[in-house]
Amino acid sequence: MMNRAVVLLSGGLDSATTLAIAREQGYTCHALSVDYGQRHRAELDAAARVAKALGAVEHRTLRIDLGGIGGSALTDSSIAVPESPQIGIPITYVPARNTVMLACALGWAEVLNAPRIFIGVNAVDYSGYPDCRPVFIAAFERVANLATKAAVEGTLKFEIATPLIDLTKAQIIRRGLDLGVDFSLTVSCYQADAQGRACGRCDSCRLRRDGFKAAGVPDATRYFQ
Amino acid sequence: MMNRAVVLLSGGLDSATTLAIAREQGYTCHALSVDYGQRHRAELDAAARVAKALGAVEHRTLRIDLGGIGGSALTDSSIAVPESPQIGIPITYVPARNTVMLACALGWAEVLNAPRIFIGVNAVDYSGYPDCRPVFIAAFERVANLATKAAVEGTLKFEIATPLIDLTKAQIIRRGLDLGVDFSLTVSCYQADAQGRACGRCDSCRLRRDGFKAAGVPDATRYFQ
Repeated sequence: MMNRAVVLLSGGLDSATTLAIAREQGYTCHALSVDYGQRHRAELDAAARVAKALGAVEHRTLRIDLGGIGGSALTDSSIAVPESPQIGIPITYVPARNTVMLACALGWAEVLNAPRIFIGVNAVDYSGYPDCRPVFIAAFERVANLATKAAVEGTLKFEIATPLIDLTKAQIIRRGLDLGVDFSLTVSCYQADAQGRACGRCDSCRLRRDGFKAAGVPDATRYFQ
Repeated sequence: MMNRAVVLLSGGLDSATTLAIAREQGYTCHALSVDYGQRHRAELDAAARVAKALGAVEHRTLRIDLGGIGGSALTDSSIAVPESPQIGIPITYVPARNTVMLACALGWAEVLNAPRIFIGVNAVDYSGYPDCRPVFIAAFERVANLATKAAVEGTLKFEIATPLIDLTKAQIIRRGLDLGVDFSLTVSCYQADAQGRACGRCDSCRLRRDGFKAAGVPDATRYFQ
């Protein structure tokens, strides 16, 4: 069981590369997507395609209605997604999202007897979300090892693996391409349409486009305008 | 906003008393129940009754399908609820349950601008679940203050309040009665029937019954046999 991992898979570029890295490190990968009521539903379809293409042994999608608590442009349709750079932490921040997703991943990892949880957070070319920082990940890892029967009884020691944390977006893209990731399967846009086509204007589109440019490789993203 | 609190409300005896304590401390209480696929659905009905009776300003139920990951007698109908005392952490332990519930409460607390999250965990007369211990709560509180925009920007400092942590079940019952809690509204049993009647044999029933006995007060629990 020690080579099992749960990989959080959003359907975007970062988590696809994370899954490819986990596979390369020899893990049997159980991919987990969280349907938290995000407006960019196309990313959940993308996650299923990516899980299959990159050899995850299974892919599950857990539903949690974070829209029921609101507070973000990604879960509340009455708040518009900004299309210009923002100062500070933007309104696309979803309260406690990574805490909720890691908590779900932890529960599944314990059931699977899997000591590793992979998450594609990045603290270089990112939107400034607090729950993407190494200090948050370290604090959650401590929670994981105190919260669970497996850790307390000593049968598992959980590690939250963040292989992208120090990479630029361009480095992530090159790493993914080296590992055979087909980025045309992925969706990053916060307001992608039902076909997975991107707006080209939101923060996530901007980071992705700049990343392909900096990496010097063609951008396979499909735009709807 | 500083007197707002999110109170996790299961529908059982402990969380009802916790809500009453939060109200007594002057908090405007937003009650949160989590429908995680537990077999004792009657507790969710009980939570709604308790929220109303104890003056919560609103009550929301978030659905998260932890049954999709299994691993517990409470979420997997193929695993029986034990009816005799268990050695070690029992099979009614739900992997990462309190981490998931606190994560959801944290998200809502941030949206509400509420600095306090109340949870009725107890480390005296309890079933030995690791995520009921003070060391876990302290670790989660640290996560809360690193994960969120409000904490990082300095507009909120989250505190996880656990007013029952050091009380015996009898002390909890007496405290609740002092505050006017009607325990006949609450459901503790892990396999309560649709009418909220209790089995009288599971660990949760045993702790509750022993608590009423030790407190020297009548037990209003309805049993189905």
